[in-house]
Amino acid sequence: MFTVGFVQFRPVRRDVAANVAAVERLLAGVRADLLVLPELANSGYLYAAPADLAPYAEPGDGSGPFLAALRRLAGQTGGVIVAGFAERGGEGLYNSAAAVDAGGVLQVYRKTHLFADEKLLFLPGDTGFRTFEHRGAAIGMMVCFDWHFPEAARTLALAGSQIIAHPSNLVMPYCQTAMVTRSLENRVFSITCNRYGTEELDGNPLTFTGASQILDTLGRRLAQAPVEGDYVATAKIDPALADNKRINARNDLFADRRPELYA
Amino acid sequence: MFTVGFVQFRPVRRDVAANVAAVERLLAGVRADLLVLPELANSGYLYAAPADLAPYAEPGDGSGPFLAALRRLAGQTGGVIVAGFAERGGEGLYNSAAAVDAGGVLQVYRKTHLFADEKLLFLPGDTGFRTFEHRGAAIGMMVCFDWHFPEAARTLALAGSQIIAHPSNLVMPYCQTAMVTRSLENRVFSITCNRYGTEELDGNPLTFTGASQILDTLGRRLAQAPVEGDYVATAKIDPALADNKRINARNDLFADRRPELYA
Repeated sequence: MFTVGFVQFRPVRRDVAANVAAVERLLAGVRADLLVLPELANSGYLYAAPADLAPYAEPGDGSGPFLAALRRLAGQTGGVIVAGFAERGGEGLYNSAAAVDAGGVLQVYRKTHLFADEKLLFLPGDTGFRTFEHRGAAIGMMVCFDWHFPEAARTLALAGSQIIAHPSNLVMPYCQTAMVTRSLENRVFSITCNRYGTEELDGNPLTFTGASQILDTLGRRLAQAPVEGDYVATAKIDPALADNKRINARNDLFADRRPELYA
Repeated sequence: MFTVGFVQFRPVRRDVAANVAAVERLLAGVRADLLVLPELANSGYLYAAPADLAPYAEPGDGSGPFLAALRRLAGQTGGVIVAGFAERGGEGLYNSAAAVDAGGVLQVYRKTHLFADEKLLFLPGDTGFRTFEHRGAAIGMMVCFDWHFPEAARTLALAGSQIIAHPSNLVMPYCQTAMVTRSLENRVFSITCNRYGTEELDGNPLTFTGASQILDTLGRRLAQAPVEGDYVATAKIDPALADNKRINARNDLFADRRPELYA
């Protein structure tokens, strides 16, 4: 069995150390093969301009303080941690997710579909949707608004992902239900780790919707957080169940696809 | 405004005339621009072999009794009727849907993704997902299990469909929720017309789940039938709302797609 989980918390802006401390406190005593943190867990969400956010962003190679802390924490939890983070790339900032274990960064995913004013802060992701292996499980990453595009989870599943790790800063009310369909249509596990709390910029508040969840390959909730509050949950799964796309004696959800008829 | 609706009923096997009579009775006094009937509304669902079903199938050109009756009924309802029907094609049978108005058959769609033992009765559909126009509205058809493949509704929406007409004979419990995601992710209206009741073949009963529904472009239910029983519902919609894929000042769900990163 493979233990997966999420760490719902409320990142604060302009204080990477405080966010590391919050995660460290919540992870005390937790052991898991895969833990997912929210989107932009190092920096918080609302910034007026890239130059305003840049001091809290860091490279994807693990040389900055946030990913270094995750590496240390992954040594404690005994697995891999997937966290959203503001990434400083060569050409600008990316809204990224990193998979980190005790050995360092395994993979970085740069968010494909930027939401609203994120387009003012970040470059569109250029990594695409890929799978990495950890202890025999195939894991893929997507970030927040990627949920709205069925092609994101589909591409991950077709690339072999058994588990979708989905760091989020959700503000619309739809994703937690839509992910049920994403898991079901692809027969994959999914872990949506959302943040909670309210941020404000120029007098405009933005409230995040919490309710982080772990779904099985039929879209059934194995765990769900409340809409507010720090919350850690784990569940034991068998990732190999996601390799079975057969839903009855005659239907295999992937073999039955007919791409020649799709746009 | 454009009036859409569904006619949930329980087709019986081996009696096309009885099914026409049931629809005719339910449509007495109903006027609507678009009405959707269940899958295989002429024939019922469970047959042991193609030769067993063939006597109740008919060509897609409107020359058979079921589509001829729909043409007459469309004259009464004052719009187009989309109904699932067993189609007799040149090479074999298809699980099809026809759009029929008072002038005749507008379009035939042959089910792309056959479910379970349907593979023993029908040829895989070869029409693909297309849009037809009726009174200024763009309508696309898909049938039942097509819901499970996000590419089906996506292809219809990318082809311009504002409304998805979805005749169904659902037996699994997932579709009515998944269609919420289908409407939302594509910003289209959808009308899932399901049947109810139980059929049995070789001692194996199959119960259909009713709960037909009309969804708006945010996936909100404008009408829903109970899980059992004849039920007609209509709703007034503005199909042009589906042309707006913009969800905030910076995101357009179609312009934001990045097909170069999709499988």
